[in-house]
Amino acid sequence: MTVKQLPIPELAEACGELGVTGVGLWREPVAEYGLDATAKLVREAGLTVTTLCRGGFLTAIDPHARVQAIDDNRRAVDEAATLGTDTLVLVSGGLPPGSRDLHGARERIADALSELGPYARERGVLLAVEPLHPMYAADRCVVSTLTQALDLAERFPADEVGVCVDTYHLWWDDRAPAEVARAGAAGRLFAYQLADWTTPLPEGVLNGRGQLGDGSVDFPAWHARVAAAGYTGPVEVELFNEELWARDGREVLAETLERFRAVARAR
Amino acid sequence: MTVKQLPIPELAEACGELGVTGVGLWREPVAEYGLDATAKLVREAGLTVTTLCRGGFLTAIDPHARVQAIDDNRRAVDEAATLGTDTLVLVSGGLPPGSRDLHGARERIADALSELGPYARERGVLLAVEPLHPMYAADRCVVSTLTQALDLAERFPADEVGVCVDTYHLWWDDRAPAEVARAGAAGRLFAYQLADWTTPLPEGVLNGRGQLGDGSVDFPAWHARVAAAGYTGPVEVELFNEELWARDGREVLAETLERFRAVARAR
Repeated sequence: MTVKQLPIPELAEACGELGVTGVGLWREPVAEYGLDATAKLVREAGLTVTTLCRGGFLTAIDPHARVQAIDDNRRAVDEAATLGTDTLVLVSGGLPPGSRDLHGARERIADALSELGPYARERGVLLAVEPLHPMYAADRCVVSTLTQALDLAERFPADEVGVCVDTYHLWWDDRAPAEVARAGAAGRLFAYQLADWTTPLPEGVLNGRGQLGDGSVDFPAWHARVAAAGYTGPVEVELFNEELWARDGREVLAETLERFRAVARAR
Repeated sequence: MTVKQLPIPELAEACGELGVTGVGLWREPVAEYGLDATAKLVREAGLTVTTLCRGGFLTAIDPHARVQAIDDNRRAVDEAATLGTDTLVLVSGGLPPGSRDLHGARERIADALSELGPYARERGVLLAVEPLHPMYAADRCVVSTLTQALDLAERFPADEVGVCVDTYHLWWDDRAPAEVARAGAAGRLFAYQLADWTTPLPEGVLNGRGQLGDGSVDFPAWHARVAAAGYTGPVEVELFNEELWARDGREVLAETLERFRAVARAR
């Protein structure tokens, strides 16, 4: 998503040139290029698919909508397996229209996970519940803190459901460091994503994630706590940013890699 | 602030006509009309000043800036006393430019409160620390949850420092209900403010607070938990909303009063 202006073949080529060996993919561009074609292309390019984004949106009340959501998430699991990644990231969904019941919405996510967890496990895919910043609680994700995400995950086996830690969503929370340790100890730290927090936020607050180093996130501290929690998996950079998308994708990828190395070095 | 288009004399008149007996004031319009003139006007209109907004912005690192901030907060306390309100609301301040140290910023707030608390107590003014939504953590307020605000308040006597509960900032947090009870039990629930959460958020995310009933906040549930915590003080409606500000102020005040009654009745 950081360089969504690059079609998948160009992305693979640019990664190869820059020495990037893993890539997190989103379902829409994969579907556009073709699932099997994408799987073949990344395999031949020697790229590991680190995660697939995203399943989720599991908060509907309407029974037909719920069945559709579960079916769609099963397809997402299948796609992850085909792409050779072991992790599907879930953005759980916001409040259904007209509802003000956050607790009920969170319980419906748990209901759906009880169906999806075994399905995913049988296919070698872990479900990573991603807490999104509280500013998305109404319209995208009622799971707003790492505490909530872990409380949810721990209702299921650790080889089915865990969490995705994204600095953009969690940087402000003084409880997050302890919860990262909890996630690690429970064997549920499935994914680690980076974006910086910059202000002012744009209208709609979706596409203002900052380039690494431009904002308020203390990346060295985050790297240290994620490492201390035993995480040795890939580190993804996920920037939703209109300005970055308007630029040359290869240039943005090179810049992002440079920033990535700089924030890792900063301590 | 809900009807900031109304100059203070018109505000007082409109409140009188609608049977509104209390008003929360902000320092800027008070200063513009004159502190003593405002105090006289609201007294003669039979209006109670429920709170004064706002003190705070206590996170500066530079010693001169810190002294200036404390002096300014002392003036805010004096203004509150002159206006006859017993509560000054504090918006604590964001990260200083270039800093990524949330913990340090929170500690500097505590330092400042240790100076301001006794000063305010001697003048009959309570300091209400207001946690702001986490989306303001970088640029306005590093105190993002009611838990953090209470942890901070409880380092000081309960007749000096407490909290302001605002539904707009706290509605998403599953820990907030228990913390409201904690605030009540500790005698630190000093103010209660209402605004609804509506999306999409506007650019800068400051002036999109929803009219009561238009959004995701479950007001009856909030009223019930604040009442259960023993709160019997005024209930303020604080809407920062460009659309409401563009309309006739008396019409907005009447509509807000109607909505206020409707959301109180909803259960």
